[in-house]
Amino acid sequence: MAAASATTGEVKLLGLWRSPYVTRVGIALNLKKVGYEFVQEEVQGQKSEILLKSNPVYKKIPVLIHQGKPVCESAIIVEYIDEIWTSEPPILSSHPFDRAVARFWVTYIDDKLLALVRTLAFGATEGTSKAEVADGGAEAFQLLEEAFAKCSHGKEYFGGDTIGYVDIALGCWLGWIKAVEEVSNIKFLDEKKVPLLVGWAERFLQNEAAKGTMLEADEYVQRVKNLSASAR
Amino acid sequence: MAAASATTGEVKLLGLWRSPYVTRVGIALNLKKVGYEFVQEEVQGQKSEILLKSNPVYKKIPVLIHQGKPVCESAIIVEYIDEIWTSEPPILSSHPFDRAVARFWVTYIDDKLLALVRTLAFGATEGTSKAEVADGGAEAFQLLEEAFAKCSHGKEYFGGDTIGYVDIALGCWLGWIKAVEEVSNIKFLDEKKVPLLVGWAERFLQNEAAKGTMLEADEYVQRVKNLSASAR
Repeated sequence: MAAASATTGEVKLLGLWRSPYVTRVGIALNLKKVGYEFVQEEVQGQKSEILLKSNPVYKKIPVLIHQGKPVCESAIIVEYIDEIWTSEPPILSSHPFDRAVARFWVTYIDDKLLALVRTLAFGATEGTSKAEVADGGAEAFQLLEEAFAKCSHGKEYFGGDTIGYVDIALGCWLGWIKAVEEVSNIKFLDEKKVPLLVGWAERFLQNEAAKGTMLEADEYVQRVKNLSASAR
Repeated sequence: MAAASATTGEVKLLGLWRSPYVTRVGIALNLKKVGYEFVQEEVQGQKSEILLKSNPVYKKIPVLIHQGKPVCESAIIVEYIDEIWTSEPPILSSHPFDRAVARFWVTYIDDKLLALVRTLAFGATEGTSKAEVADGGAEAFQLLEEAFAKCSHGKEYFGGDTIGYVDIALGCWLGWIKAVEEVSNIKFLDEKKVPLLVGWAERFLQNEAAKGTMLEADEYVQRVKNLSASAR
């Protein structure tokens, strides 16, 4: 996972690979060919001293520690990586309008997908039926399909020829999305409804930067099953 | 409110001045001395056609329309303004670490202050007592006091000598914070507890960029009273 390559000082990533937000940072580092040390947080029990010291406000992973300084919040870390390692490929475009559009979709993805995965993995929340959740999810993917058509300009990724900010933000969720689809029996990445996204997801998972950053599909499925069971 | 000055093309701001998120954009534009047209959204009734067309996903203000293109979400708009109008003062530092820290606090502010103002204006939410809300608010301001000590480097603003990203994000809430303090009888900007923030708030409200972007204090108080009454 930790590619050996030129780095500007010491780089550590505090996290757990099951977290899409940690995956996000891993993909960004791979994209920039930055070597780093992955520091595994304990799954159970007390949070590590290094995490509590590095992110005293939220006490949450991921945290990127670069030259001894902690950077928190996954989307902020990805922007930081793009600004520190300015080598190709750029994660964000140099055009302010395209940057604003990408930031908009990243915010949207975090807003919608977390809620969707949480609801379907933990069971429908009070006052919301499974059908409503499915409809909400389908609408979100439809909007992302349209966003892909606009952002990609007919190329392979939201970022154009290479993986960009929106690709990373959405791609890190693919393991969870597929697991939630299987367990809930609701298809979101449906070839008939969102063909562009389905093609994009296949390319994304084959991309060198994404390889090895996610668990195997059945591990996510097992986790979702465990979460669903414990929520009952 | 709309300062006459050199602009890069036509600039419109869709909004309502009672919204702190709209205030935020107004302050950023003033800081960069960008002239703009303020397009008032209807308070009641249907959303305007221009809003629905410009922000079809969230249908929410503020929207900045620059050269015919819409930019949505207040924090994203402020970054866009800084990237388009690169004249002094910079809103974000040019140092990636300082940028990441500023983005972290802006996310924190949006997360905590919206919840605080909403809870105190609409009445305490289920399962949360007023005392708990007060404690949570006090803790947030204490953290922001410490953030100010670190970010300002002994100068006037979070951004140093001039208003920056965190100043704008927090400053736009000052009208609501003071109104909520008055109506709920809880003091957050307390000289004894957060002296740096109290001094900062006074300077901020006197700054040319902030003047005229907020309603009069008693107008916010009246709005909070109305909200509290309608929530009962």
